Amino acid sequence: MQNFNFCSPTYFEFGKGSENKSAELIKKFGGTKVLLHYGGGSVKKSGLYGRVVTSLKDGGVDFVELGGAQPNPIDTLVYEGIELCRKEKVDFILAVGGGSAIDSAKAIAAGTLYDGDFWDFYTGKYIEEALPVGTILTIAAAGSEGSCNSVITKGKLKRGASGEVIRPVFSILNPELTQTLPPYHTAAGSTDIIVHILERYFSNTEEVEVTDRICEGLLKTVINQTPRVIAEPDNYAARANIMWAGMVAHNNLCGVGREQDWASHGMEHELSAFYGAIHGAGLAVINPAWMKFVSKKNPRKFEQFAERVWDIKDKNIDEAIKRYEEFLKSIGMPSSIKEFGAKEEDIPMLAANIGLTEEYTFGGYVKLNIRDVEEIYRLAL
Amino acid sequence: MQNFNFCSPTYFEFGKGSENKSAELIKKFGGTKVLLHYGGGSVKKSGLYGRVVTSLKDGGVDFVELGGAQPNPIDTLVYEGIELCRKEKVDFILAVGGGSAIDSAKAIAAGTLYDGDFWDFYTGKYIEEALPVGTILTIAAAGSEGSCNSVITKGKLKRGASGEVIRPVFSILNPELTQTLPPYHTAAGSTDIIVHILERYFSNTEEVEVTDRICEGLLKTVINQTPRVIAEPDNYAARANIMWAGMVAHNNLCGVGREQDWASHGMEHELSAFYGAIHGAGLAVINPAWMKFVSKKNPRKFEQFAERVWDIKDKNIDEAIKRYEEFLKSIGMPSSIKEFGAKEEDIPMLAANIGLTEEYTFGGYVKLNIRDVEEIYRLAL
Repeated sequence: MQNFNFCSPTYFEFGKGSENKSAELIKKFGGTKVLLHYGGGSVKKSGLYGRVVTSLKDGGVDFVELGGAQPNPIDTLVYEGIELCRKEKVDFILAVGGGSAIDSAKAIAAGTLYDGDFWDFYTGKYIEEALPVGTILTIAAAGSEGSCNSVITKGKLKRGASGEVIRPVFSILNPELTQTLPPYHTAAGSTDIIVHILERYFSNTEEVEVTDRICEGLLKTVINQTPRVIAEPDNYAARANIMWAGMVAHNNLCGVGREQDWASHGMEHELSAFYGAIHGAGLAVINPAWMKFVSKKNPRKFEQFAERVWDIKDKNIDEAIKRYEEFLKSIGMPSSIKEFGAKEEDIPMLAANIGLTEEYTFGGYVKLNIRDVEEIYRLAL
Repeated sequence: MQNFNFCSPTYFEFGKGSENKSAELIKKFGGTKVLLHYGGGSVKKSGLYGRVVTSLKDGGVDFVELGGAQPNPIDTLVYEGIELCRKEKVDFILAVGGGSAIDSAKAIAAGTLYDGDFWDFYTGKYIEEALPVGTILTIAAAGSEGSCNSVITKGKLKRGASGEVIRPVFSILNPELTQTLPPYHTAAGSTDIIVHILERYFSNTEEVEVTDRICEGLLKTVINQTPRVIAEPDNYAARANIMWAGMVAHNNLCGVGREQDWASHGMEHELSAFYGAIHGAGLAVINPAWMKFVSKKNPRKFEQFAERVWDIKDKNIDEAIKRYEEFLKSIGMPSSIKEFGAKEEDIPMLAANIGLTEEYTFGGYVKLNIRDVEEIYRLAL
């Protein structure tokens, strides 16, 4: 086990009706003038928007609003949010939505207090300060509700920023809010959760049994519960288990003490940027392809994955990957990047866009150069 | 799953040499004048005391000190600490030791800012404010390094207090510091960790797969790793896995979303108060006895415990409890309360001291009245 530090200070209010505590929590964390940031029509159609506005008004919390956050949230809306926050002297951002609204809110929170271009944070600059962010989560997926990460798209560049000051101070997790999600989004969310765990699980660092077993328990939970919510979208208990697993999957409890990987996320980001793939759906294609490639080069952890996650006793790695693919297919996820519109001839461009070369590699469990990545995209065709 | 809230804001610095960051962390969390609170000679003999003092002096952090915290920490030292903190205008408490030094530090932290008798907090009063507490942990056991709880003994009364303001702001976890522990204390620590998980695991709340699987993963980790450290006390990796499991076991991640039990802790507290039993060793006797009694009345969760923790496929609950007892014996834990000096004729007094009657019960998984508790003590003879 490697040395590490861990801090997950977000306050989670979990359960039925918890969105009605919005004003109370904002005031507890010092907010007086709020930017209410959300996505499209579903938040309004579901009645959630109305309940949040009622909570804010009843609680005497002043607010301005900015809708329009979209999957793979974009820089232009962030710029708009920053301008609005400065103009309206906003001191707290409440994101209502999924990872997109939350990531967009985090970018606005950091950008509002920064003298330069917020995009600097997405090209490596350290985030020193940010407005406090609270969230009301509407999809179990990104884990952004408990993480210090944000991913924003600028043109064809999809890039991440990270910093303790953009970690939400509170997150409201009401599983009921996820019951109206379309099955495809539900399944893509679960896939995202699974891959958040796997990017940390596949590691060469030895002697991390505690972290491994937490990962395996979360994986089994999401694998067991997702088919239930696909079959019965209103299943509160299954939704609740997935929603909490989604938070724990990404606050880094699954990653402490070891090297992590994240190559599948890197490869998927290009699918989102070029073809507008829903992130989790992109991962559903890329992650098994990554497994097929790297398991031949470094089988060690895959034997444990087969045994402990899939109950395969004979170290049959191919069987484990096959079971994983079948699971993803069973919940309605795609199995080829062609389903997003990608063609074989696009592959060199996709790989090049990541910024790799033959020498410059990424990934942790197996280091991948540009040729390896092309091969993985081919396996994902 | 029940509604819940969860917040575990402690900053953890984990790994080799992390105690050298003491001054840096105290300053980060606003401390300027520190009470260095510790137990007996082992902290000095091991050289840890010297390294901490060096860190404080090099970092320019002023401090006073109070040693003498003992297992089952007592009220008289807390009063002494409160007086010292007030006199010296201490604004931060650094506990160096195990659960005892940390629990004592938490009591001092709350008592210093309170106008009345700190014992009020241990008889139900809400803790409104406290000095910030940091910890350097020397034994994986109590989980006090990440919890908002404290247990103090006054005469024959061993009672707990709880409050967000006494949760440590930081905890330094260096597994090396636990390598010099005697095997009995190591084993008692692991037992304490296991029972912290089980008090939350045995619950009638259904549909908490995510929490259950985290519990089961931690249990397997401690059960696998403890025999390694008993055989090889210097095994850093095994120590590290147990140490981190001990924190996760008690910051309530294992308890969220459900009713909890805690009857075994209630019964064990009397063994510590009357016979000076090391807490974990007392639990090693009481918890299996509790299992034998309650599994007959409510077998449901025990079937899962047998299958997922002990890999017993045929729902053989008695076999699971037997395997648990054998495990505890194999790591050197006692198997009868007689080993602490208890006699059969003491049992009515032990049960009465908990404060139960035939009508007033405790426990969650099975409600226990005074007669049930007497029966469990008898099973522990």
